[in-house]
Amino acid sequence: MELAGLFELPYYAVIFTSLRTETDEGYEAMAEEMVKLGGEQPGFLGIDSARSGVGITVSYWRTLEDLHRWKAVARHKVAQKLGKEIWYENYVTRVARVEYEYAKAVKTTAS
Amino acid sequence: MELAGLFELPYYAVIFTSLRTETDEGYEAMAEEMVKLGGEQPGFLGIDSARSGVGITVSYWRTLEDLHRWKAVARHKVAQKLGKEIWYENYVTRVARVEYEYAKAVKTTAS
Repeated sequence: MELAGLFELPYYAVIFTSLRTETDEGYEAMAEEMVKLGGEQPGFLGIDSARSGVGITVSYWRTLEDLHRWKAVARHKVAQKLGKEIWYENYVTRVARVEYEYAKAVKTTAS
Repeated sequence: MELAGLFELPYYAVIFTSLRTETDEGYEAMAEEMVKLGGEQPGFLGIDSARSGVGITVSYWRTLEDLHRWKAVARHKVAQKLGKEIWYENYVTRVARVEYEYAKAVKTTAS
């Protein structure tokens, strides 16, 4: 297990918080597919994810344009639609510009 | 269980990601105390937290000054010191300005 590292400032964080429905159908496979596909996009820097009741996924992006492009990827749009209709009871997506950061024992990642 | 709601823009998110050590001594009590004490600070808007291996806590603040004031609260400084020395193997703290947000079935919170 590993934390996403530090990146060159400024960059963007997409903070996705969610509560799931009881419908699991297709969820895990799609979540894995999106982590893989998202990780291949231009401008992707890293991702952190945890769930214990509330789910929190934070993905890190070089620019706003990079994350807008990812939001518009066809397969990702399918995932977003199914998420809204089936898998998530509710969610919040926040787009935030990282202003500064500090860490213990985490290294700067080339980006 | 509930997600933090939407707040009036702009505001700030402190994204704290962490990996714990195996030392639990005092951790839960301090974590609860910090959630309570943090929630009483001026400018505090809300908090989301999850852990499954990786821990992610995102707290939301009206201004940078508000979160700097909270960082400097004496009891919080004790918690930060113990966190660094005992409870966390590593961590990253990111301070980010929320630029926009959208949600499913989550209401705007007065702030």
